[in-house]
Amino acid sequence: MKKELDNTSIIPLYHQLKEILRDNIESSKWRPGELIPSENQLQKDYNISRNTVKKALDDLVAEGLLHRIQGKGTFVAMPKLDQSLSSFYSFSKVMEEKGLEPKDIIISINKTNADPNIANHLQIPEGAPIITLERLRCAKEEPIILETSYIPQSIISDLDKEKIQKYSLYDYMQKEYGVIVTNAKEIFEPVLIREYESQYLQVKPGFPALLLDRIGYDANRRPVEFCRSIVRGDRCRFYTELL
Amino acid sequence: MKKELDNTSIIPLYHQLKEILRDNIESSKWRPGELIPSENQLQKDYNISRNTVKKALDDLVAEGLLHRIQGKGTFVAMPKLDQSLSSFYSFSKVMEEKGLEPKDIIISINKTNADPNIANHLQIPEGAPIITLERLRCAKEEPIILETSYIPQSIISDLDKEKIQKYSLYDYMQKEYGVIVTNAKEIFEPVLIREYESQYLQVKPGFPALLLDRIGYDANRRPVEFCRSIVRGDRCRFYTELL
Repeated sequence: MKKELDNTSIIPLYHQLKEILRDNIESSKWRPGELIPSENQLQKDYNISRNTVKKALDDLVAEGLLHRIQGKGTFVAMPKLDQSLSSFYSFSKVMEEKGLEPKDIIISINKTNADPNIANHLQIPEGAPIITLERLRCAKEEPIILETSYIPQSIISDLDKEKIQKYSLYDYMQKEYGVIVTNAKEIFEPVLIREYESQYLQVKPGFPALLLDRIGYDANRRPVEFCRSIVRGDRCRFYTELL
Repeated sequence: MKKELDNTSIIPLYHQLKEILRDNIESSKWRPGELIPSENQLQKDYNISRNTVKKALDDLVAEGLLHRIQGKGTFVAMPKLDQSLSSFYSFSKVMEEKGLEPKDIIISINKTNADPNIANHLQIPEGAPIITLERLRCAKEEPIILETSYIPQSIISDLDKEKIQKYSLYDYMQKEYGVIVTNAKEIFEPVLIREYESQYLQVKPGFPALLLDRIGYDANRRPVEFCRSIVRGDRCRFYTELL
């Protein structure tokens, strides 16, 4: 299971070790709050000098992936982007509150027809005309969520690329078409990052992610948006309060 | 990427194909609601007869992993155990409502001391005495969740194995110690199943799972339980309604 370091490589040993440790964290092999092996242990495991181990750990501590507790050892840091599921979720607002500049990259806007799955979620006939909007949502230039929205053309007849870069999708729907999303149902499950998604999200295929399906309703309980998101598991976690 | 079938194996080809397709579903390479390759395509891909493909698909449809839509093709079925996050979660009750007989297997009960992470969650001093309860929670004999509860010994001084198999943990805490859990905070993130967990949950390491941390509080907002669960991603999904 354990990867070996390559003594003949031009990549410095500390850097090779760092990437192995980073992989352990980002793939969740080592989980938030866990104690990682001691410097002594890593030294033995990889047959390298104490200094090499220390340099790798120092870097990861500086990057915020690990943290040291005096006299206790080195622990995997908690992921940074906590998001509440108790209230209506807005990526832009959550990021702004955290002081992380949100940025959306529009991948595509298409007019197409609802496949059986999407038609079912939107309660429209199969093949009915829809607009799809695919976006990569970033925090401080780092990609976090790959998101595709499906909106019936009976709800909005068009989607203006310029405007959708200025307002949120919901603000756009309200301003241009008088459609107000009043509540939503979210369904989520853990999945693995796929090849296509990994290109956008800049993490390896097979890494953990959350698949989040949201159906947005207007005041008449009519579905006005179905949205499927892939959320990076190494960068996000969700919380909720239960009464 | 694609696995080959072994013509020389004593395992029938349809069964080999079935296991490959099952892997695609359970590892979430193929996701709920997705159209899978046609029978024709699978026949070509694996260089086998139509009958072999049909038999593998028939079995997976019968098991509820796939479903066919006339004239459309074969789709990955939705996972079956939907669980609400909007209200206080009880595994036993959710399973009973679904007509799935819940069953708990107690793996261990130990008296030990709080490590820094657990002490932090329970707001107790590091090293303070706690009771740990590790359980495998099953629905109809199928393991679903591997769960470890950490309770300060200042809250409950002992945990009776016989009784904990009869009541829920919260019922036990209330009946024996007058401790009532009134609300909870849950934090969850997608992770990968690890070796240790895979033995209990009977899915392969590297498969997707949800890591769910819950802190239960009494009416005075005092933490009385910290619980860490690993929930099988191929068998569960969660939903919530947002207002």
